[in-house]
This record gives sequence, C-alpha cells and structure tokens, in this order.
Amino acid sequence: MSREAAFIQSLRAIARHPAARNLDDDCAVLELGSETLILTHDMMVEGTHYLPTATHGADMADVAWKLVATNLSDLAAKGAQPLGVLVGHMLGTGDDRFAEGLAEVLARYDVPLLGGDTVSGSGPKSHGLTAIGRATHTPVPARSGARPGDAVWVTGTLGRAMLGYEALRNGTAADSSAYRRPVPLLAEGRALAPRVTAMMDVSDGLLLDAFRMAQASGVAIALDSASVPLAAPSRPLDCMTWGDDYELLFTLPPDTSPPVPATRIGIVEPQGFAPLFLDGEPLVNPEGLGYAHNS
Amino acid sequence: MSREAAFIQSLRAIARHPAARNLDDDCAVLELGSETLILTHDMMVEGTHYLPTATHGADMADVAWKLVATNLSDLAAKGAQPLGVLVGHMLGTGDDRFAEGLAEVLARYDVPLLGGDTVSGSGPKSHGLTAIGRATHTPVPARSGARPGDAVWVTGTLGRAMLGYEALRNGTAADSSAYRRPVPLLAEGRALAPRVTAMMDVSDGLLLDAFRMAQASGVAIALDSASVPLAAPSRPLDCMTWGDDYELLFTLPPDTSPPVPATRIGIVEPQGFAPLFLDGEPLVNPEGLGYAHNS
Repeated sequence: MSREAAFIQSLRAIARHPAARNLDDDCAVLELGSETLILTHDMMVEGTHYLPTATHGADMADVAWKLVATNLSDLAAKGAQPLGVLVGHMLGTGDDRFAEGLAEVLARYDVPLLGGDTVSGSGPKSHGLTAIGRATHTPVPARSGARPGDAVWVTGTLGRAMLGYEALRNGTAADSSAYRRPVPLLAEGRALAPRVTAMMDVSDGLLLDAFRMAQASGVAIALDSASVPLAAPSRPLDCMTWGDDYELLFTLPPDTSPPVPATRIGIVEPQGFAPLFLDGEPLVNPEGLGYAHNS
Repeated sequence: MSREAAFIQSLRAIARHPAARNLDDDCAVLELGSETLILTHDMMVEGTHYLPTATHGADMADVAWKLVATNLSDLAAKGAQPLGVLVGHMLGTGDDRFAEGLAEVLARYDVPLLGGDTVSGSGPKSHGLTAIGRATHTPVPARSGARPGDAVWVTGTLGRAMLGYEALRNGTAADSSAYRRPVPLLAEGRALAPRVTAMMDVSDGLLLDAFRMAQASGVAIALDSASVPLAAPSRPLDCMTWGDDYELLFTLPPDTSPPVPATRIGIVEPQGFAPLFLDGEPLVNPEGLGYAHNS
C-alpha cells in the first residue's frame, strides 16, 4: 500500500459521519435543516499540479482558474448550485495574476469569494480551495448508484486536456486552454442530477474513474472504446487515461435519454471478476489506468 | 503596502458578497434557508507556522491538533456549533502522527471529518483546514459591534502560548501544551454570543486584535494593562503581543456580567485619534503590536 493509500485509510477510520461518504466520493454531502450542503476541498502544488513558475513561467491566473474550476466540477457532478469558495494561498511570484484569474473564474460562474487565508512559505507554492454548494436535487447523485442494465454515458470529448498540456509543454501554437482553463459543467450536472443513477466528473482519466464508479456501485462497467469521443483518435488509450478533462461520466436507466449532449459509451453489468471491461477485456488493476495520484 | 496587504486588497475587490464581510472578520457568515453557516479556512506551513519536522522534530500530531483547534476557535468567536471539517494535507514525514492528532482533536470536540484532499509535494509541507459551523445565535457576533460605553473583557490568561513555545524551543521541561495544543473555547463562545456586542479570538496578540476590533467597530478601545491576566507578569508587553492564545476578546454593555469566567480589561470609547490606548498611551500603528503575518 502506498504512503498516500495508507494515510487515506487512516483518515477513513476517522471519517465515520455519513456525510463523509467514507471519503469515497468527490464531495461531502451534509444535511442541514431543509437544505443539503455539498462540500469539497482540493489542493494544487507547484511542480506537482502545475508547471513551476520559475522554470516554465506558468501563468498564475491559469492556476487560480483551474483551482476553482476543478472544485466547481466536483459540485457539478452532484448537481449542486455553488454558494461560494474559500481560498488558501501561499504568496509568491504572480500573485497579481492569481488574483486576476480568481476574479475571472468566479465572475464567469457567478460564485462568491467568501474568505480564506494567505500565508508565506519557502519552496514550492501550494494553494487550497474549498467550494460549498447546495443540492438542487435529492437524493444527491453518487458514484455508487450504477445498476446492471444501465447505460454508461459521457459528455464531451476526452483527451482535450492532454493535447492542451502537450501544446503548453512543447511550446507549440496549438490551443492549450482545455488544460489551463477547464470548464466545470454546472448546468449540465444540474440537468442530469434528477435522472442519473450514478455520476462523477472525469478528473483522473475515463478508465480509472469508470473503474472507481464500478467498484463503488458493486457492478461491472463494460466500455466500447470505438464509441468514446476522442480528441486524438490515433491515441485512444492516452485519451482515456490522461485525465483533467472534467467531463461528466454518468449512468442512466436503459431507454432514458440524457437531457444534455452526451455519448453512450458502454453498459453496466452485474459484478463479475473485474470492475471494468474495455472492448471485452477485463481490467482488474487500477494501476496505470489513470492519474491515481490525484485521487 | 506589503505584498500580502496588496494581495488581500485585491481579494477584497472580488469578495463583494455580504457573507464575506469584506474579509475583515475571522469567518464568512452565509445565510442558507433557515440556517446561518459559519465558514473559515486557515493554512499552516512548515517553517512558517510550525518548527520544521526534520530539524526540530515537530510532532505532526500537534500540527494536526493546532490546525483544527485554531479554525474551531474562529467558530467559537462566532458562537457557532461545528458541523465538520475538510482537511488538505501534503504527505511527508509523520503522516501517521498527523492522522492520530487529527483523530484526537476531532474526537475531543466531537467534530466530523467530512473530506478533503491529499497531495504530494517537495519542500516545506503545507496543510489547509476548512471548518464549517452553524450559528447558534443571530445576529452572529462580529468584530465590528463594540459601542462606546461597553466594557472590554477577555477570557483566561495571556502569554501561555508564548511560554509554551519558549519551553519547546529551548528544550526545557516546562509544559508546552498551551502552544502545541490550544483549546478552542466553543462552549464559552456559545454562551457569550447572545450577550456580546463584539467578539473575536485572540490569535495574533491582545493588542493587535483589540486594535482590529476598535478599527472594525469605528471606536477606540482603552486597555488597562494592570488588569490583564498575564502568564509572565514580568513581561507584560510580550504576553500582550505574542498571540496564539486563542482566548476570547469581547465587549459587553456596561453593567452586564459575562456568563463565563473572564476579566474586565478596559472600556470602549468614542473614535478618537487612535484606535487603541494602553494605560492612556495612544497606539496608532498596528505594526509591532502582534503577529500581523497571520492575519
């Protein structure tokens, strides 16, 4: 067991409140009075989650955008309406650009900045963001609701963030915005929430995230790679494992159509000897299926 | 203007929602249905907020305790009941102790762990914590409610964290727990909330925090140093500027007694040429009054 897996295991032993969902989901789901709160927190670290400012000149406005957008994507997967964010920021080069990117993304999605903390530190910078939302539909969609017979759907095209990253890394003229400025699918998530049996965002790669959905639901998911919309059709496995696309992966009862543009990419089957099948081939081990680090 | 002050100023321009309280308060206060949410986020950075693990052998259980306790102290100053926390943790030496300290402090105050994020990084570690609470009394106490004629009160004894830090740094046998394991005054804050005109926790030093309360309230605060309970009576200024004590500083209408043990240390006067007077001497400049960095 990796150091991270061991640590998360010890946190699970603490997080016994049902709102924590055993730390298996993207968000906490907390009942409060007549409302249901949706809470999520993600960190980004220089050199781990973004190219270092000093050596690669990462635009801190993009870092702020992505920090907010990835957390809003977690809310989107719950069909939640964002209520606000709290930001934890380590001061450093590009603070003015960070503030500009923060202002941009919050204005774009009409989300209030509620508070946070600013700290000094040496070494690589880190940044935390907490997003708070309210459920627009209960029961709140979870990863764990997929049922045999359901169809598996995904929004958008996979691999766009990968191509954007490669453009940025290689300094080509190609558009890198899909990597730098992901779009949280808030409206789509809200439209889907009342209909889906399970939903999550594709943050760590389609195969790994589908694997996790199957495990959480106690089913098998069978994907048909030929039907998956790919940004780089010649590199299907890269597109399905790279992650960072923030599309929505969801299951619907058979004969139900999604209320938003999406592609049917597979079916849910009873639990078998593997959680995931790709074109009939069983995938037993999550290692190598995606960006496991960020789980 | 320092880099931090400039950055916070640019955040204030974004944080226009009334729940953010212009980023002048310890917490955001967000109305939601019939409830009022109290939200706060603080970060701790190795080498800035705690002695480095490698060179000083900081016990990561203490770091986890303090990370939670300082955020719960912010909730205490609002009279809030904690609903849960989200933790952002950078992996490193002492993760097992961090998890143990987290379990201890959350069990001690009966607060659920709701979720969070675990990341890898190089260099000094950083940790973020978001605490969510619900108001037990509205209007929620703010820093800004002190009125001329009110009395100024503080719980406990100031300077205990300073003595604890010195014991730890110097490796003496003296008790360092006040520094390592501060106690959030949740019950006291709840008892006080319906009676106070203003309240905050003393995180950055009595003088600096009283200065801020006076500024936020548009009044002057006159403190009588002889009445301030000091852990090191021979070093009154050190005790009143060092911070980290997490006592509650509050104002009450004249002739009102506090419902918890506390000491009357001064009075509120109309706004004059200084926000703060210590034994009649005006203190105009917040620099040097306390631990401004952590604001």
